Amino acid sequence: MNLTNSIQEEEILVANQSFYQSFRMGDLPEMKKMWSQKFPVSCIHPGHPPLLDYEEIIQSWENILQQSGNVDIKCLNPSLSLYSQFALVTCYEEVSGNHLIATNGFILEDDSWKMVLHQAGPTVGRPDIDTVDIESEFIN
Amino acid sequence: MNLTNSIQEEEILVANQSFYQSFRMGDLPEMKKMWSQKFPVSCIHPGHPPLLDYEEIIQSWENILQQSGNVDIKCLNPSLSLYSQFALVTCYEEVSGNHLIATNGFILEDDSWKMVLHQAGPTVGRPDIDTVDIESEFIN
Repeated sequence: MNLTNSIQEEEILVANQSFYQSFRMGDLPEMKKMWSQKFPVSCIHPGHPPLLDYEEIIQSWENILQQSGNVDIKCLNPSLSLYSQFALVTCYEEVSGNHLIATNGFILEDDSWKMVLHQAGPTVGRPDIDTVDIESEFIN
Repeated sequence: MNLTNSIQEEEILVANQSFYQSFRMGDLPEMKKMWSQKFPVSCIHPGHPPLLDYEEIIQSWENILQQSGNVDIKCLNPSLSLYSQFALVTCYEEVSGNHLIATNGFILEDDSWKMVLHQAGPTVGRPDIDTVDIESEFIN
């Protein structure tokens, strides 16, 4: 781990937290700024088909933030994977005591980390519970 | 779109299909080769906690492939996002008429595309049905 990587990792985790803060605060302008307009983007809300277009993704967040109001969503146990100019953050999302599992992808764009991927889905696991038997790829 | 990108895109889609072929054929040796041993990896089976370690991920596939035998899993509507040395493929998985939605991540490692991310989860959507109302981030 060199200093550059360490600084980058900090920046990415801050970007990831900013995403959840925008969500929590219902802050659509910040949410718009989070997402890349230069690179391909992909957003999969739990149970829903993929959105692969910036405008569609922002529209979905507008719907969510309008309907949800301020949401007590927390990001727990973020785990960062850095691949030079690309990064993935795997984390739990806690909403009213329920947990989801999410992957957020970021790309370095003009010196700031922009979101290019968000996929969240249900999980039977919870943070700090390490092992669950994997029986099948297609268990719900 | 230049020629290099076009060739890379073809290579990535082939790697993505190889992943599903390994799954379908219950081919653990091929599955082992698919995943990167050099870069950080993340695998989220539907409903399960994240696996963030190569050995854990391979163990989970061993369990799945042993229990499933040959599975008639198909990858439908793959959509590729290329970010230089990193790529994401968003696709549907069809298993016995049921659909999941998945994101697969690949990195260019020593001239071949290795898997670093697999996240699959349930979806109410199906391929070629474009729009579903997004009501909330935390709908299952």
